[in-house]
Amino acid sequence: MATVKDVGERQLVDTIRSIVRPRSKNTVVGPGDDAAVIGGSSDGSIVISTDVVTKSRHFPKGMSYEQFGWTAAAVNFSDIASMGAKPLGFLPAVTIPEDEEENNLYDIMSGIDQCCEFCDVDVVGGDTKFGELAVAGTAFGTMEGRKPMTRRDAVPGDIVAVTGTLGDAAAGYYALEKGIDADEQIFKLMVPVPRVEYGIKMAATGIVHSCMDLSDGLANAACTICEMSRVGMEIEWEFLPVDDGTKEVLEACNQDVKDTVTRWGGEYELLFTFDRKDIKKLYDAGIAFSIIGLVTNDDGPYLRDGDKRTAMQNGIY
Amino acid sequence: MATVKDVGERQLVDTIRSIVRPRSKNTVVGPGDDAAVIGGSSDGSIVISTDVVTKSRHFPKGMSYEQFGWTAAAVNFSDIASMGAKPLGFLPAVTIPEDEEENNLYDIMSGIDQCCEFCDVDVVGGDTKFGELAVAGTAFGTMEGRKPMTRRDAVPGDIVAVTGTLGDAAAGYYALEKGIDADEQIFKLMVPVPRVEYGIKMAATGIVHSCMDLSDGLANAACTICEMSRVGMEIEWEFLPVDDGTKEVLEACNQDVKDTVTRWGGEYELLFTFDRKDIKKLYDAGIAFSIIGLVTNDDGPYLRDGDKRTAMQNGIY
Repeated sequence: MATVKDVGERQLVDTIRSIVRPRSKNTVVGPGDDAAVIGGSSDGSIVISTDVVTKSRHFPKGMSYEQFGWTAAAVNFSDIASMGAKPLGFLPAVTIPEDEEENNLYDIMSGIDQCCEFCDVDVVGGDTKFGELAVAGTAFGTMEGRKPMTRRDAVPGDIVAVTGTLGDAAAGYYALEKGIDADEQIFKLMVPVPRVEYGIKMAATGIVHSCMDLSDGLANAACTICEMSRVGMEIEWEFLPVDDGTKEVLEACNQDVKDTVTRWGGEYELLFTFDRKDIKKLYDAGIAFSIIGLVTNDDGPYLRDGDKRTAMQNGIY
Repeated sequence: MATVKDVGERQLVDTIRSIVRPRSKNTVVGPGDDAAVIGGSSDGSIVISTDVVTKSRHFPKGMSYEQFGWTAAAVNFSDIASMGAKPLGFLPAVTIPEDEEENNLYDIMSGIDQCCEFCDVDVVGGDTKFGELAVAGTAFGTMEGRKPMTRRDAVPGDIVAVTGTLGDAAAGYYALEKGIDADEQIFKLMVPVPRVEYGIKMAATGIVHSCMDLSDGLANAACTICEMSRVGMEIEWEFLPVDDGTKEVLEACNQDVKDTVTRWGGEYELLFTFDRKDIKKLYDAGIAFSIIGLVTNDDGPYLRDGDKRTAMQNGIY
């Protein structure tokens, strides 16, 4: 019999989707997007997402318990932010080893609460049980009448854009590993900021065709939008917003800059597409972003660097 | 330094509540009830709850993976049912060991999906990561304009009532342990039914003062309502709805029937209180229940059996 590891995460998810069957007319967006969108309320759909962070996978060397807690909340707020939702609350379900120091649990909760404060909501409930250290968080919010930004409505001809800068969290990770001084990058790794404000503003413009967060990396997000929208994408390496400092750190760590910047997960910027004629509405909304490519009716996504054009792969670090 | 085990679950929860601070005016009911109630929508508040079930604690001998999945969903639907909410969706965050057989994961998901079907909603999202086997589920729903039934509004003079029968799941557990034939009781243990329909009907009457599910047992629920409503309670042992068959199984297993029936968790009936003058409205709504006692302005809860009157303790099995 195959184990879940043999099958692989991606194949598991596909199979699970064939097991859980859609049946409710209230489900506007079901599994397969950053977050689900549920109707059943006249003025503003509910947006909701759940993600587990575990000690073995999301607790890099040097991270504090407080930062682990912040991260557990942030990854979930990022998922509802990318739909354009205003957060309404958060619920952490924490499993913790019996022999864990009590202060570590309080630090996790404090980190969660600080991220909730950043998003102007409460920890409205939760659960604590003994087990391997993990936080299964649920963030939910409301569209307040805005149309959700999904992964499936990118249109050929759209501009592809991204908020913030890329590669910082990866650089922080490798800097820690090598003992290189890189405070700014390490902070970005430890305290990811969900783009809640940008998500709300973007959805409010009504002009964004598709949007997804970069929690699994740029290549993964580009591949997913292409697959779900049945479009292609051309991304220009020269256009990607990578800080010089971050480049230097990655080079000092002997990392391939291009590969790291495009494929490293754990970044919480938003990748989005829109019709170029509407660009002024995004500027007027006060959203800072970089144009990085175009949606095509070819296949893809491809990364172009001068004469080289390579297919972007879905794998993440 | 104290470990979380030294501190104990109850004290942990109290401390956590002092760490997470209320700040949002949208939170109608925060931590401390069966589920949270959040406003921010004009017609019907959002009701939401998260609970983890773990292999070590919620996977009794003889349970199938499918039943484990059903249970993971049912405990959460029970929490929102006890507020009087109509379910809108469910999200499971599953952690699973890498060497677990893939079919076991599919069986868990199938069990979850069957319970969602019972509640007429979809699995709207979720997450799967490698780790110790656990399902952190989140159920959410809407009050549809009904007033939520909390734990804090019981009034002296109220009738105390409970849906269904008590002690069946406990009897099933001990029957399995002893190898005694008790199909009905074992089924109740393995496939708990959330009282969604009753919760909605009860809240719709508008006459229920307080309500809580029996997931941590009758004594715990009675103690919690007394504490949060600042009331006392007198419960009559003779009035508790315990099937003769269940009594026989417990006796055959050498279990103290009274102790087991009042203190065993893992039952999903609803304990609720209401003004006696309104009783006809509950009958008219088609809710089957047993009257088991009265709310007082004394302390308590107490269990009365003939001349004996003993304070009910908050501990659960």
